[in-house]
Amino acid sequence: MPTTAAVSEKAIWFFEEGNGEMRELLGGKGAGLAEMTRAGLPVPPGFTITTQTCLQYYELGRKDPPGLADGIKAAMTELERRTGKGFGDPANPLLVSVRSGARASMPGMMDTILNLGLNDKTVEGLAKLSGSDRFAWDAYRRFVMMFSSVVLGIEKDLFEEQITARKKKLGITMDPDIDAKNWRELVGDFNKTVREHGKRDFPQDVQEQLKLAINAVFDSWFSKRATDYRRYNKIPDDWGTAVNVVAMVFGNLGDDSGTGVAFTRDPNTGAKELYGEYLRNAQGEDVVAGIRTPEKIADLERSQPEVYHQFVDIAGKLERHYRDMQDLEFTIERGKLYMLQTRNAKRTAEAAVRIALDLVAENVIDKREALSRVSAASLDQLFHARIDPKEKYEVACKGLNASPGAAAGQVALDADTAESWGHAGKAVVLVRVETNPNDVHGMFASRGVLTAKGGATSHAAVVARGMGKPCVAGCEGLQIDMRTRRATLSGKPIAEGDWITIDGTTGDVIAGALKLIDPPSKLPDWLAIFLGWADEVRTLEVWANADTPQDAVKARQLGAAGIGLCRTEHMFMQPERLPIVQAMILSDTPEARAVALAKLLPFQREDFLGILEAMQGLPVTIRLLDPPLHEFLPSQETLLVETTELRLREGEESAAYREKMRILKRVQQMHEQNPMLGLRVCRLGILYPEIYAMQVRAIFEAACELKKRRVDVRPEVMIPGVGTKEEMKFTGDAARETAEEVIAERGVKVAYHVGTMIELPRACTVADELADHAEFFSFGTNDLTQTTYGYSRDDAEATFIPRYLELKILKDDPFQVLDRQGVGSLMQDAVRRGREKHKDLKIGICGEHGGDPSSVAFCHGLGLNYVSCSPYRVPIARLAAAQAAIGSLK
Amino acid sequence: MPTTAAVSEKAIWFFEEGNGEMRELLGGKGAGLAEMTRAGLPVPPGFTITTQTCLQYYELGRKDPPGLADGIKAAMTELERRTGKGFGDPANPLLVSVRSGARASMPGMMDTILNLGLNDKTVEGLAKLSGSDRFAWDAYRRFVMMFSSVVLGIEKDLFEEQITARKKKLGITMDPDIDAKNWRELVGDFNKTVREHGKRDFPQDVQEQLKLAINAVFDSWFSKRATDYRRYNKIPDDWGTAVNVVAMVFGNLGDDSGTGVAFTRDPNTGAKELYGEYLRNAQGEDVVAGIRTPEKIADLERSQPEVYHQFVDIAGKLERHYRDMQDLEFTIERGKLYMLQTRNAKRTAEAAVRIALDLVAENVIDKREALSRVSAASLDQLFHARIDPKEKYEVACKGLNASPGAAAGQVALDADTAESWGHAGKAVVLVRVETNPNDVHGMFASRGVLTAKGGATSHAAVVARGMGKPCVAGCEGLQIDMRTRRATLSGKPIAEGDWITIDGTTGDVIAGALKLIDPPSKLPDWLAIFLGWADEVRTLEVWANADTPQDAVKARQLGAAGIGLCRTEHMFMQPERLPIVQAMILSDTPEARAVALAKLLPFQREDFLGILEAMQGLPVTIRLLDPPLHEFLPSQETLLVETTELRLREGEESAAYREKMRILKRVQQMHEQNPMLGLRVCRLGILYPEIYAMQVRAIFEAACELKKRRVDVRPEVMIPGVGTKEEMKFTGDAARETAEEVIAERGVKVAYHVGTMIELPRACTVADELADHAEFFSFGTNDLTQTTYGYSRDDAEATFIPRYLELKILKDDPFQVLDRQGVGSLMQDAVRRGREKHKDLKIGICGEHGGDPSSVAFCHGLGLNYVSCSPYRVPIARLAAAQAAIGSLK
Repeated sequence: MPTTAAVSEKAIWFFEEGNGEMRELLGGKGAGLAEMTRAGLPVPPGFTITTQTCLQYYELGRKDPPGLADGIKAAMTELERRTGKGFGDPANPLLVSVRSGARASMPGMMDTILNLGLNDKTVEGLAKLSGSDRFAWDAYRRFVMMFSSVVLGIEKDLFEEQITARKKKLGITMDPDIDAKNWRELVGDFNKTVREHGKRDFPQDVQEQLKLAINAVFDSWFSKRATDYRRYNKIPDDWGTAVNVVAMVFGNLGDDSGTGVAFTRDPNTGAKELYGEYLRNAQGEDVVAGIRTPEKIADLERSQPEVYHQFVDIAGKLERHYRDMQDLEFTIERGKLYMLQTRNAKRTAEAAVRIALDLVAENVIDKREALSRVSAASLDQLFHARIDPKEKYEVACKGLNASPGAAAGQVALDADTAESWGHAGKAVVLVRVETNPNDVHGMFASRGVLTAKGGATSHAAVVARGMGKPCVAGCEGLQIDMRTRRATLSGKPIAEGDWITIDGTTGDVIAGALKLIDPPSKLPDWLAIFLGWADEVRTLEVWANADTPQDAVKARQLGAAGIGLCRTEHMFMQPERLPIVQAMILSDTPEARAVALAKLLPFQREDFLGILEAMQGLPVTIRLLDPPLHEFLPSQETLLVETTELRLREGEESAAYREKMRILKRVQQMHEQNPMLGLRVCRLGILYPEIYAMQVRAIFEAACELKKRRVDVRPEVMIPGVGTKEEMKFTGDAARETAEEVIAERGVKVAYHVGTMIELPRACTVADELADHAEFFSFGTNDLTQTTYGYSRDDAEATFIPRYLELKILKDDPFQVLDRQGVGSLMQDAVRRGREKHKDLKIGICGEHGGDPSSVAFCHGLGLNYVSCSPYRVPIARLAAAQAAIGSLK
Repeated sequence: MPTTAAVSEKAIWFFEEGNGEMRELLGGKGAGLAEMTRAGLPVPPGFTITTQTCLQYYELGRKDPPGLADGIKAAMTELERRTGKGFGDPANPLLVSVRSGARASMPGMMDTILNLGLNDKTVEGLAKLSGSDRFAWDAYRRFVMMFSSVVLGIEKDLFEEQITARKKKLGITMDPDIDAKNWRELVGDFNKTVREHGKRDFPQDVQEQLKLAINAVFDSWFSKRATDYRRYNKIPDDWGTAVNVVAMVFGNLGDDSGTGVAFTRDPNTGAKELYGEYLRNAQGEDVVAGIRTPEKIADLERSQPEVYHQFVDIAGKLERHYRDMQDLEFTIERGKLYMLQTRNAKRTAEAAVRIALDLVAENVIDKREALSRVSAASLDQLFHARIDPKEKYEVACKGLNASPGAAAGQVALDADTAESWGHAGKAVVLVRVETNPNDVHGMFASRGVLTAKGGATSHAAVVARGMGKPCVAGCEGLQIDMRTRRATLSGKPIAEGDWITIDGTTGDVIAGALKLIDPPSKLPDWLAIFLGWADEVRTLEVWANADTPQDAVKARQLGAAGIGLCRTEHMFMQPERLPIVQAMILSDTPEARAVALAKLLPFQREDFLGILEAMQGLPVTIRLLDPPLHEFLPSQETLLVETTELRLREGEESAAYREKMRILKRVQQMHEQNPMLGLRVCRLGILYPEIYAMQVRAIFEAACELKKRRVDVRPEVMIPGVGTKEEMKFTGDAARETAEEVIAERGVKVAYHVGTMIELPRACTVADELADHAEFFSFGTNDLTQTTYGYSRDDAEATFIPRYLELKILKDDPFQVLDRQGVGSLMQDAVRRGREKHKDLKIGICGEHGGDPSSVAFCHGLGLNYVSCSPYRVPIARLAAAQAAIGSLK
């Protein structure tokens, strides 16, 4: 809940009283209007009710703070004075817009009401003043519709249906063809609808209209969509929203009027040219509604050159003033320009980088500021599959951009279908009303997930992000009837098996299969330059997690300065090796195990040859075998079914049954209740030292071979899951012994280190002792999060974490955003203890958090030497590390 | 490895130079001999080589420290001077014994050599001096046998076989019937055996004999049996052993000679009477070997009254001097008494308590010292099943007392047999050469476990202790041939299915079924008095873990001041309830779940009525549902087999198959990879708040009903597995809401608290925040150990922990002895953070460590308010808490 710490006493600020620095108090819109007013730009008069007032409103249980009503009344009187009009004056009515305005832009998430102040009497005055009955009644009906839906909660469709019916009756198709008389009659009908569905009359008292509208804006701060948006964009709930009350100006008073939005640069590419749209004879909502196709902003030059040049001039001034690309709203009323908004513009990641580069070239900002201007997380957009920009397509409907990247596949309406098609090699998109834990197997088998319900913290969203798959959630245009197995996208039928494309970065859903393009494996030049600047200021090194030579090459191209985690178990899983691995595990004697290990050795050596060569000159941290051995064995469930079938069909004496039973027995013997906490990590290397010995031998045979070829190799051997100094000593000594043995055999010198992962709470508590035997630490924050919270990631993300996020029991999924308070405090202890022993101890992180910007900032603060993340997140981490170094990311 | 910190420069101490306080340096035996010498008691002259010398020996890689050889030579010269004999002098030979003596008594664990100084020449001198050829050659052959086996490592049996053969040839049966000539010939044969098996001649040089013997004693400190013994008895490796070199006196010089051991009180019952045995005309080893039946010590009064009275007098003096019951060794040489050892005597737990009580009554010690005199852990003996003392029986063989308690059952030679017999309701003792993880299911089904191999840290020992089952391990008299499935106990056959009895407290194995008696549920008077003293000094409260009214009554009778953990899930498992619980879990709708919960409510209310009433006036801490729900469902494995069978036999369309499949699907849906880290603890209560609501309602309906009957009830509601303050707030608020609702309904007042378990590392890091919403903390150290180490107890104790203990990677099983460094440091953080917020926060521990003395001491040090343990461990905890308070237990 919001707090009242440092409440300003002044609840209402006229625009000329504030300034652009006061975003916290006045919101982004209010601060922009104030700044423009101060600068002498043409802004309609108005005032802002502060965000603190919103917080007080919530603190009082959605009640007005004392004195607010009087304050508003006084402000309205002042506004009357300035405009020379009267609020509710039938002869000369003052109309206002009431708009939300939070500290951060939340486009479309909160409410706006235009034309407030109209009633059955003032509408006549407006008609006289404007000289147009039609204009006045059109404005009034718009106000009734907007107010009724936003403030009174009446479905907008109820009004739209009546307009449609009326047009049918009149034999016309376009709203502008409805005349004053018909609008007047419709307003009458609308009032009946309000009485029926809203259980009250439409308020004729303009003061009541204003009070209700202001409260509605406050209320919209905690609407579901706004709350979900904040959750996803990590905007705190306790910022609150300001409310702006502005004298109306009208873009719909004829062809010398209009309204528009413009960006001072192209928000898609960053190109330095005015970019935007202008709609003649229209109000703002018409632009959004898309009733008519707007003109390009540049076309205004021909029709109203003076106004256009005035606007270009103002746009340039504002960009220079704010030292960043601006997003502008304006209205032209009978040839006079009014600025309604200026704010720093949202832009694509590519545009953000290019604009930052340009602004430095233009001497507007310096490099450090340029680095701060680009959201590190946004670079992620560049490294997911995306729809080929050459594709022309129509968006069937939009949902929430719940997990980034694009996917194309055939629609499967349930998880079992998705799984069987997926296993059959089809590209599948799982399409559900919403998902639950029973759908997880289907999600695994799909390219992407689309749901009709649920927000950014829904099960589908959380699980898809965990799996790294695209997801569009809460797509309201999607209808599914599971009884008939039929679905529609914005009303158009889509059958199971049909192709669709989803874009989890934008929320777009498109019928049909679009061409997707894979993320680049090389940095584009403009990004390379920009990240070069990042490298100049950052102190944290960025390494990558890579298990194959291909990944290593990619990581290097994206700027990784080493491999922080090479998982050897992935090498065990390859089809030609798995039978040997199984033979090793199932062997009854150490001798049989030795035979299998000897067969694996050349494979592993090849693996390491490739990676060490690809990373020559840079460190390669190879983690010895980590997962429980039964991960490599056939599933117990399958074997149980197979043995039962064989028993009934072939009999208990059959050779087939007996052989299958033998395997089942061994698998059952190795079965563990909680494999995550069982015989895995260094425990394997202590119970079966021959496995680690084989791996270390393979590493050093590869290293020596390369060294003979004059390749500069830097192997680092990493022991997983150490919790006691004795484990570290045992496995560390054994690794060094084997390494020295191979080095002596081959007669070359290879420099290397032996270190440990810190991934258990106990390791953090004894880090000083571990530092005696480990030459480096690498935080395995995935496992450390699992044990610190007592959550199994596989289980928790599919079962209770989504619900926890929904209930706000968790602020973030701790597997995606490093938990500073719990996991972080253990990490801090470990760093302190480790460095107390050896002040130069090299410490990194190789959990997935290594690529999350806020976690990177935390690691910078902890004084780590490097973060290691998946190759495609290396650019993100480079930028985040730079931002942490210059203090713009905490 | 040992360290040389504070090495004393003086390596050799004659007895009169030391004193009884110098146990650390001189060992227990050396200090005792020194003290007796100082007190003027008749002790043969001799000297002690210090424990530090032993440590130096190991530090130098089993080499003599510089100067030691010269020092020994000088000491021997002095010993020659004192005895008037010459070491190696054929005319008047000085013989010595060489005995180990560690700081703590380790009976039979290390080596002793008697009669050293004999060789082919001095034997003749001894014959002349003693006037007996037979005596001299008997002494010589004993020396050769002892020296050869202890120092040269030759099997003693090789010599025994020759003696047996000789007796057969001579037609005699007893050793004493062998004459000097035959002993002489046998010594000749022995020398050949030494040459053959020892690859050297038996050393004739007495100085060499001495040096080898001393080194052998040093070496025996790290013999396997001594190392195992220390591990089990928690004696540090770095204490080392002293070596005592003592001039020989002979108990085998005729009927006025003899040797004996005596206790100043009865070590079994504690009764105040001299207790011991005396063997006429014998050397010490004869007593141990049990060749002849010794006399009772009291019988000596008749044969040698003067010596007897002298001994009684000395025994009394020594007991008063040491202020504790003494364990004495003595020899009478031709009517002259020599004291060879005095030490505090080992005794049973009962004797320990009774003696402590008596010594206080005798004004020898005060109550605080009495409390320190009894090992808290030893009280455990009193609370296990034990063999009825009225039973007369013969011990077939002895093994290591690996897990306490007695068990009688039918022999099963493999785990599968044990399991099937156990499930059929038979009492089974699993008998194996050794156990491994594949035997665990059989151990579960058995009453106890007996193994032929393995020590106190063997798999069998560790797992049985974890299960709380009796185990005798490393029983060398047990032979098993699995091919023929035959076994023998000390050579006598024992068939599968035969009854045996094992006593894991003593290590005894007995053929046949003995009557066992269950532990008392009430404290015997002598113990009640003693623990009353403990209660006077301790500050830590002792509570009990109890799930039933019966257990609660027992806990109260054993002195529990509250229930620290009442596990509600055990109540869910009862046969009449399980179907309802399953229906609740399998229900598809909240409504169906509500119906099932409503059925469970009256059962739970009954449970709580019983426990709250039994504990009236005392707090009862009830933990809400904790385990993952699928623990209550049928096993997935069984269902897989059953559905496959139904599919093949009845077809996929059969109703039986479809119903079974429905259940299987639901069970599979609920299946978790790592249930320990999954949907359990408070996560259940957050996802299914109706379950916790039902439980809280049942608690308060019961409490209110009792309150109306004027019963003083003190319910404490405990939330399990909290890791975030939001979880605590959510579940705590919900519990308080339901409680207040019931209290309001019933119209009575019930005082209660809502608190949390601290059982996740994260809970420790945010304990300050939890303290805002929790009124008490209770450490769940089982789970906290699991997550801190990342060990699943079920998996780890059956797989890698035994091996870890063997390799000394772990010093103790952390599930049995609280890990102070890791788990303990997190606990310390939690206490500090919690009390920083609320300085009077009540904090306890309810993990199994609550009954382990050293863990109790740690909890005392942490400043906890209470420990809670299983009822039978309450007495142990009461004593341990007292010892911690008076500082005698750290």
